[in-house]
Amino acid sequence: MAKDAPRKGSGRPEIRLDRLQARLDAVNRFGTDESAPGINRLSFSEADMSAREWLAEEMTQLGLDARLDAVGNVVGRWDTGSGPAVMLGSHLDSVPQGGNLDGVLGVIAALECVETAMEHDIAPGSPIEIVGTSEEEGRFGGMLGAQAMAGLVDPDWFENARDDTGTLMSDAMRAAGLDPSVWSQARRDPSGLKAFLELHIEQGPVLDRAGKPVGIVEGISGVFNWGVTLTGEANHAGTTPMDLRRDAFRGLADFSAAIPGIIDAVGTPATRLTVGKVNLYPNFPHTVPGLVEFVVIGRDMELAVMSALAEACREQLRAVAEKHDLELSVDQASWLEPTPCHADIIAAFRSQALELGLDAPVMPSGAGHDTQMMAYLTRAGMIFVPSRQGVSHAPEEFTDWKDIEIGCNLLLHTLLELSGRD
Amino acid sequence: MAKDAPRKGSGRPEIRLDRLQARLDAVNRFGTDESAPGINRLSFSEADMSAREWLAEEMTQLGLDARLDAVGNVVGRWDTGSGPAVMLGSHLDSVPQGGNLDGVLGVIAALECVETAMEHDIAPGSPIEIVGTSEEEGRFGGMLGAQAMAGLVDPDWFENARDDTGTLMSDAMRAAGLDPSVWSQARRDPSGLKAFLELHIEQGPVLDRAGKPVGIVEGISGVFNWGVTLTGEANHAGTTPMDLRRDAFRGLADFSAAIPGIIDAVGTPATRLTVGKVNLYPNFPHTVPGLVEFVVIGRDMELAVMSALAEACREQLRAVAEKHDLELSVDQASWLEPTPCHADIIAAFRSQALELGLDAPVMPSGAGHDTQMMAYLTRAGMIFVPSRQGVSHAPEEFTDWKDIEIGCNLLLHTLLELSGRD
Repeated sequence: MAKDAPRKGSGRPEIRLDRLQARLDAVNRFGTDESAPGINRLSFSEADMSAREWLAEEMTQLGLDARLDAVGNVVGRWDTGSGPAVMLGSHLDSVPQGGNLDGVLGVIAALECVETAMEHDIAPGSPIEIVGTSEEEGRFGGMLGAQAMAGLVDPDWFENARDDTGTLMSDAMRAAGLDPSVWSQARRDPSGLKAFLELHIEQGPVLDRAGKPVGIVEGISGVFNWGVTLTGEANHAGTTPMDLRRDAFRGLADFSAAIPGIIDAVGTPATRLTVGKVNLYPNFPHTVPGLVEFVVIGRDMELAVMSALAEACREQLRAVAEKHDLELSVDQASWLEPTPCHADIIAAFRSQALELGLDAPVMPSGAGHDTQMMAYLTRAGMIFVPSRQGVSHAPEEFTDWKDIEIGCNLLLHTLLELSGRD
Repeated sequence: MAKDAPRKGSGRPEIRLDRLQARLDAVNRFGTDESAPGINRLSFSEADMSAREWLAEEMTQLGLDARLDAVGNVVGRWDTGSGPAVMLGSHLDSVPQGGNLDGVLGVIAALECVETAMEHDIAPGSPIEIVGTSEEEGRFGGMLGAQAMAGLVDPDWFENARDDTGTLMSDAMRAAGLDPSVWSQARRDPSGLKAFLELHIEQGPVLDRAGKPVGIVEGISGVFNWGVTLTGEANHAGTTPMDLRRDAFRGLADFSAAIPGIIDAVGTPATRLTVGKVNLYPNFPHTVPGLVEFVVIGRDMELAVMSALAEACREQLRAVAEKHDLELSVDQASWLEPTPCHADIIAAFRSQALELGLDAPVMPSGAGHDTQMMAYLTRAGMIFVPSRQGVSHAPEEFTDWKDIEIGCNLLLHTLLELSGRD
């Protein structure tokens, strides 16, 4: 798979896949051990902090000024050109038993882009910064690294955030050698940045199914999260005639069966409506379910569509509650608006894809990414490389090296365009 | 509520509600304590065995020959008349935290019928037996008392039956002072019985809703119990477009939503189709459910209808599996055929109801009862009194005393008709 040596000064520069692979192997030693399959680089764990040390050292060897910021982001600056910097990168942390690409690929790709530019003696017009963000996977329920840079940290959340085991985020940070009291120092001045670029695996099946090597993200879907309860009456399933039941599950089933119609009526191809969590009570085969709790998650790229979906879901829930004589309660746990990627960045990716002869579809992201926080700080955008069968957050996560190479070259040329040289 | 003293020899005899109430209070002292609400007279518990001793003593005081059989049934015989006996009764055991009528009302009613006949100097043409059966509520998964009398005990089941806590039925019997090795001695010779009559609470809402004091049971519904698994693919709910999902829950929802159509097409008013137990995996809000396990319970009074329902359910399950690209597995845990009550007994109940001026609908039983086992031994039939709001297996179980009185009088006169005197 190793490419030929770079063709200095001849034609368009290309990244070196062998070097990218070697760095990926190197960083993934942190978080790999016999105790569990896959990558285990939970935020602020020893493996995570060791990977951050390694990254800072790689940056230093490239001649960048490397630093660990107040919330654990590793930032390396190539102080070239002038004016605001173009930043690129992604996150270093992983979910438990994750794959070897989610997040870290974008960091390694960023290093490779900078090294390629340097060895081609390219002098960017703007400074370039590489970032390996912290705590993107939500061990503590947010995206601390990117949120802190963008000034989007809620101090109450910061104080009280705990992981599944009850560990306070601030305690985990202290154990990792960070001082949680100075978190606000991680905030970046918007005037110091002109763009943020991220390369990430898709974590969905769209590119893989379509056979495309790369996709350009139009934005991160908005999402609403509803906890819904339908309350009827638990009765003996043998002795209660069908027409005298108040069967909570039949209400949910009718709602769920109506979802395709709701999407046809008011949704878009980017719409996702999911009932993924369902708990019946008493959940006994011979008892008509008296109560069902479930979660409805809705997503779309357009705020108006999200509102229409929410309204249609509410109407449908009211209808099934009335039909089955149930009490309905809807608790909106969260409502996050869609975050469009910046039109300039989308345009830059598209124009470079055209130059490279790539068929790169523009597509939504249904998963959250650092980019959605960075979009509040600067012009932000991202590209996806395919996830085989859509699998992520699992050791089986896989992307073809050829596609990684193509995605990294698109990142490189877009970086060069935005930093004033290509 | 106390009735006048019986009008000896004058007109139709009537039961004495005050005496019935007093006996019900007396027996329900067994299983009532501070540790838990309701009645707790689990089969073979100390409370259950004490109630059996009490019942045998009541029988003896009435002049009956009382005995505890090999599986814990208490049988009292009024050795009057000649030929085969008419047996009446129900079960003494209760579910945990049950009500004060389920089962025991039919035993106390039987005592009251016999005492009423005796005090009216009625000499039945046939012997009469009262039974308080054992283990009807299925602590060990069957109806041991009635099954043993009817010769319907599977020896393998008898050996291996355990309750929810893992206690072997044979150990529980031993602890209750019974010798499990002689269980087959409880079997009754069919030639010794001419009929079995049971009065029981409905445990459903039909009579209560209709405002009827009593119902005549046409039979006990057959029931099939299927464990169904639909297997799709668990995927990220944000990144997986609707048309690329293999959402197991959408399969179940479509099946459940189709149930009313199945009943319209091939069911009857006695049909029950219930999805009461559902487990999703991974049951996480942001993950498309990759697998769902659920139980389908189907009931009807006619075997041909049960078969048609089963076939229609299978077809529908296959259709939703194909629609959502799911693997389907159906495990039939049980298939019990409907048990009709005997036409002679239904006719006797109807004719006596007519005599008493009662509007007593003929109705199916969706719950299992001793009668369905006794039907294999002799001509068997039963009547229901209303359950307020259909509630049973709970301390709130309630039947109006007026309805109990009416039901008990119907039982009395049907007994007298069948035993050759009315």
